[in-house]
Amino acid sequence: MREISDAIKVGAEAFLHRQNATIAYMAVGLAALIYILYAFVRSQNEHDPASPGDLALWTTLSFLLGAACSVASGYMGMWVAIRANIRTAAAATRDMNSALQTALRGGAVSGFFVVALSLLGVAGLFALVNSLGVAKDVTQVPLLIVGYGFGASFVALFAQLGGGIYTKAADVGADLVGKLEAGIPEDDPRNPAVIADLVGDNVGDCAGRGADLFESTAAENIGAMILAAGLYRVNQALFEQNGLSLLSILLFPLVARAFGILASIVGIMSVRTNDDEDPMHALNRGYYVTSALAIVGFFFAARWLLGADYYFHFFLCGVIGVLASIAFVFLTQYYTEYRYRPVQSIAEASQTGAATNIISGVAVGMESTGFPVLVIGVSIVSAYFLGDRSGLADAGLFGTAVATMGMLGPCAFILAMDTFGPITDNAGGIVEMSRQPKEIRDKTDRLDSVGNTTKALTKGYAVGSAGLAAFLLFGAYLDEVSNYMPAFQRSINLNKPEVFVGAMFGAVLVFLFSSLAIKAVGKAAYAIINNVREQFRDKPGIMLGTSKPDYGQCVDIATRAALAKMVVPGLLVLGMTLGVGLTFKFLYYAMGQPANGASGAEVVGGYLMVGTITGILVALFLNNGGGAWDNAKKYIETGQYGGKKSESHKASVVGDTVGDPFKDTAGPSIHVLIKLLATLTLVMAPLFL
Amino acid sequence: MREISDAIKVGAEAFLHRQNATIAYMAVGLAALIYILYAFVRSQNEHDPASPGDLALWTTLSFLLGAACSVASGYMGMWVAIRANIRTAAAATRDMNSALQTALRGGAVSGFFVVALSLLGVAGLFALVNSLGVAKDVTQVPLLIVGYGFGASFVALFAQLGGGIYTKAADVGADLVGKLEAGIPEDDPRNPAVIADLVGDNVGDCAGRGADLFESTAAENIGAMILAAGLYRVNQALFEQNGLSLLSILLFPLVARAFGILASIVGIMSVRTNDDEDPMHALNRGYYVTSALAIVGFFFAARWLLGADYYFHFFLCGVIGVLASIAFVFLTQYYTEYRYRPVQSIAEASQTGAATNIISGVAVGMESTGFPVLVIGVSIVSAYFLGDRSGLADAGLFGTAVATMGMLGPCAFILAMDTFGPITDNAGGIVEMSRQPKEIRDKTDRLDSVGNTTKALTKGYAVGSAGLAAFLLFGAYLDEVSNYMPAFQRSINLNKPEVFVGAMFGAVLVFLFSSLAIKAVGKAAYAIINNVREQFRDKPGIMLGTSKPDYGQCVDIATRAALAKMVVPGLLVLGMTLGVGLTFKFLYYAMGQPANGASGAEVVGGYLMVGTITGILVALFLNNGGGAWDNAKKYIETGQYGGKKSESHKASVVGDTVGDPFKDTAGPSIHVLIKLLATLTLVMAPLFL
Repeated sequence: MREISDAIKVGAEAFLHRQNATIAYMAVGLAALIYILYAFVRSQNEHDPASPGDLALWTTLSFLLGAACSVASGYMGMWVAIRANIRTAAAATRDMNSALQTALRGGAVSGFFVVALSLLGVAGLFALVNSLGVAKDVTQVPLLIVGYGFGASFVALFAQLGGGIYTKAADVGADLVGKLEAGIPEDDPRNPAVIADLVGDNVGDCAGRGADLFESTAAENIGAMILAAGLYRVNQALFEQNGLSLLSILLFPLVARAFGILASIVGIMSVRTNDDEDPMHALNRGYYVTSALAIVGFFFAARWLLGADYYFHFFLCGVIGVLASIAFVFLTQYYTEYRYRPVQSIAEASQTGAATNIISGVAVGMESTGFPVLVIGVSIVSAYFLGDRSGLADAGLFGTAVATMGMLGPCAFILAMDTFGPITDNAGGIVEMSRQPKEIRDKTDRLDSVGNTTKALTKGYAVGSAGLAAFLLFGAYLDEVSNYMPAFQRSINLNKPEVFVGAMFGAVLVFLFSSLAIKAVGKAAYAIINNVREQFRDKPGIMLGTSKPDYGQCVDIATRAALAKMVVPGLLVLGMTLGVGLTFKFLYYAMGQPANGASGAEVVGGYLMVGTITGILVALFLNNGGGAWDNAKKYIETGQYGGKKSESHKASVVGDTVGDPFKDTAGPSIHVLIKLLATLTLVMAPLFL
Repeated sequence: MREISDAIKVGAEAFLHRQNATIAYMAVGLAALIYILYAFVRSQNEHDPASPGDLALWTTLSFLLGAACSVASGYMGMWVAIRANIRTAAAATRDMNSALQTALRGGAVSGFFVVALSLLGVAGLFALVNSLGVAKDVTQVPLLIVGYGFGASFVALFAQLGGGIYTKAADVGADLVGKLEAGIPEDDPRNPAVIADLVGDNVGDCAGRGADLFESTAAENIGAMILAAGLYRVNQALFEQNGLSLLSILLFPLVARAFGILASIVGIMSVRTNDDEDPMHALNRGYYVTSALAIVGFFFAARWLLGADYYFHFFLCGVIGVLASIAFVFLTQYYTEYRYRPVQSIAEASQTGAATNIISGVAVGMESTGFPVLVIGVSIVSAYFLGDRSGLADAGLFGTAVATMGMLGPCAFILAMDTFGPITDNAGGIVEMSRQPKEIRDKTDRLDSVGNTTKALTKGYAVGSAGLAAFLLFGAYLDEVSNYMPAFQRSINLNKPEVFVGAMFGAVLVFLFSSLAIKAVGKAAYAIINNVREQFRDKPGIMLGTSKPDYGQCVDIATRAALAKMVVPGLLVLGMTLGVGLTFKFLYYAMGQPANGASGAEVVGGYLMVGTITGILVALFLNNGGGAWDNAKKYIETGQYGGKKSESHKASVVGDTVGDPFKDTAGPSIHVLIKLLATLTLVMAPLFL
């Protein structure tokens, strides 16, 4: 066990070190660019939240801090996973409960670290900037630290993209040659790509998702604080009458998050099972405990900080958020588990070949966007109406922000469940490769299959929270633009042609980004396939078990390919956003404005909003389509439609392979993209005015 | 030849009769609903363009007239195609020029009929309503005849959907059993699904596309007239100073279209080739002649009707439109022809199997959305700036409308090229099945491959014109809403949560609609596959050539499946649009409006606009992805990567089959969907206020 675990450790650490070095160069370069743009290019005005020098300095510093924390979050996710995997494998030699608890608590280390770090980072920066008196006014402090969210998203994008390309290139490469051509089972030690595949689970799912959810919570914290500041400005008299200070409103998002952490701790501790129960039931119980406690915590936080007259409506908004997260978890199960119609229809279509398998998988993926969007829509509108009716002026938007806080309440628990996935997957690989007895392998297999489910669910959760958080971040963007330019109408009017065109560009960005991410996996997998084929050809002893394959070659190929291919999509996002904003800024400068009075900031707003909508839909399509293909294959493997080795099974393997880059590279990267767009436009907005 | 042509004729006519009967029932039902909603449900107000009774009556009548004309257009497309196919086959026994001219002029019959009918219908309705003095004011006449565009789109949706499902179910079914399982070539008379396949080309490509472009031109005509009326109201004094009457402005869109027809006539007449030339070059020459003449005609129309002081800017807008159409034709070629990188990359990926073929095809389809959107964006913004600078007030939007007119100028020529595709395809089938000598088959093969190109190009053109026309139709929608409710701000502000949610629903509609269309093909093909397998099993003489297959069974299955499956997606569009509009109307009625002042009409505006953007992208993705897969297979068949019968070829056949419902069912139906959304919201707007 140690030998295999060490090989995984070495591969994962080597990748993350090289990845982080690449990211660090880019982050420092971008920090310099931000500083220069802010200090020398931006047109300063009297509404700036601080002096030009301070504004440039703190935006840059908070960007670097956010980036550093995001790197740490990703690293932590990987660090704990590559240590918990062997412990889980060892615990499986005892009983199911030990194995389950070891894997989940391993995941929890990373979950709590990530959420706590985002809380500490935002709260610490806020306290620091506030105590230095850099901002003109405490309500403008959040505008100085928007860089934190951007830094976090920037790193998360590369972590998720690079990790996602790595994991799927290795997976597709290992499967296509190993399973299909050589006919050896999954995780067989004779496969030269098997270690790269196991490393991939850690760097893609743990490191990538860790950075992803770190930036979700960080972006949401800062966005909610900007909105809270705006709410306070409008309702100052009312708040003072009720004995509420500005700080209590500003800190509400952070306190609500802290209660969510407490709820998650209890939830994690409550998870226990026995050898007979389906481990998924135990995890679900923990999730319900966490959700219920998060609601209770939310009640106290709201009652404490939002005042007796107003808290109840906002408490209900929080409940809406928690319910939305449960709905997302259920809907994701419906579209991706083989107990239900969608996956079964794909399995049925596999009987007439790969083409009909693909056609029906695409149809299921597209169909699966419907109900989640309905849930997001109903949540946003009902939270908005509740906020609007709370008695405070202009509080509708804050209502949607509170719903987002509610949805992100159980975030630490969800992240623990997510990291649980690759830990159990690796534990299974270690058990298999170290040739443990069958009853142990059975235990880790059951945990592994639960891990696949939790990974799918957290993806659904991540899209849902991105959808809700989006609206909050738009509000923050508009608040920020209004702060710099009080004449701004806070309107993103699609009827202005420039805004409509900006919106089209936002939508197209998602398609181009997905295309690059999917293509990158194809190319990298191609290189790995050729290497594995070569190794089999050059050393016939590998297949006989007499000589060992060179695992390092595949690890190296995957590492280099992932690092090379993650850069272009990242630059596309930065370049296109700056391009849209600056093109219109200069167009108006050169040609004068047409009668409709559109501004660069408004065009970018349309770009951001429609890019977000498209991103949510495309991410749902890719995640659920990919998950459904995966499980259609598993359904056939249970003996349906001819079972393993049948023609239907071969067709379903094609679908599964197509789904890999959809659900583990492009889809999750789009979650990050959505939030990156929001934080990027927050930081760049002052340049577009 | 006669025997086969007659079988096609009988199948196609039987399908269209049954399809038209189904559509007629639905259209009459919907007409009754429109009448009831308008006459009894709508809240009347003093800004109505006519008395409540007249408004309800003329909206309903124009809907029915539009629907009838659309049916006639589709029928005409099919009627001429099933007669021109055998003539083209016969002409191919003489020389290439005769065959090319016969096929193109056959297509032209339908092209001119469609464009002329839309012009006559709109102009005739306008003249009738105007002479009866029904409207309060001549500028409000277009509001009474918006039903015409809706009727046309409504029929077009079902024609395209039903035809698209029919043609691809038959095609996929014929290919999967015939080519892959039985190993017989395409169009082999032993294949029981071969006649259904040939019928499909006529009912899908001819009848469907005929109705599609009919509604494009009809919707554009009415939309442009509404905008022209609005422009006149704002600039009345200026126009009168320049001696321009209201009629000259209102009729400008119709006159510009008439010049486009003249240009297309000359273009068609100028096409001639010889036996050595690539027939595509001859068609391209005709297209350039048409485009150049359309620009000249546009100059005179603008100079004549828009006044010496203002015409030049609008003439330039028209030039932008013509250039955009040329750009679309070029970009479509780049992404779908095997001379270029994208298709070659799919062929290369086929070497590692079906999965990598699909992955790279999806990546190419997504990538192919980029430049077309850039072209639409640059065209809209530059035409808007030109209009804005024309010297007339509020004329930016009219500038984009004029660009759309420019793009639709060569429409009759394009439609002729499109119908050329199925005519030559059928001619090839007839030549093959009647076992003509090889040199004749070679000629029809060359024409058939040109026909595939022209079919792909017209799809690109249809998306592009839908993109440009969309903006014009939004303008018409807002003008209409303002007319009924002068307090309306003409703003579709995405920052209002309700509008944002409406926008999400618009985007999700496109995904759900595509899912249904794709799934329908899968199910119908499944039925045909089973029937063909059964026939081969029950009558072994079919394969030996001793007994004839029963073509009628497959024709019948395809007909029934297409008619049954076209209804749900159609009802989804109607239901969701009415659902979004009325839900928010009643929500506001029951709960009161929140502080942001959103209205049902604004929510529907967001739904329409973002639905349109998503529709453009998804249509490009599906059309170009499908086309690229098709040609990647053809590229391999030229001998690349192992050529025919190689593993790469098998992988590429999977991609080709997946692409079939993408490019011939879902994609083209989305063009219609986009325009249906626009005309539907135009007709329903008065209900949402």
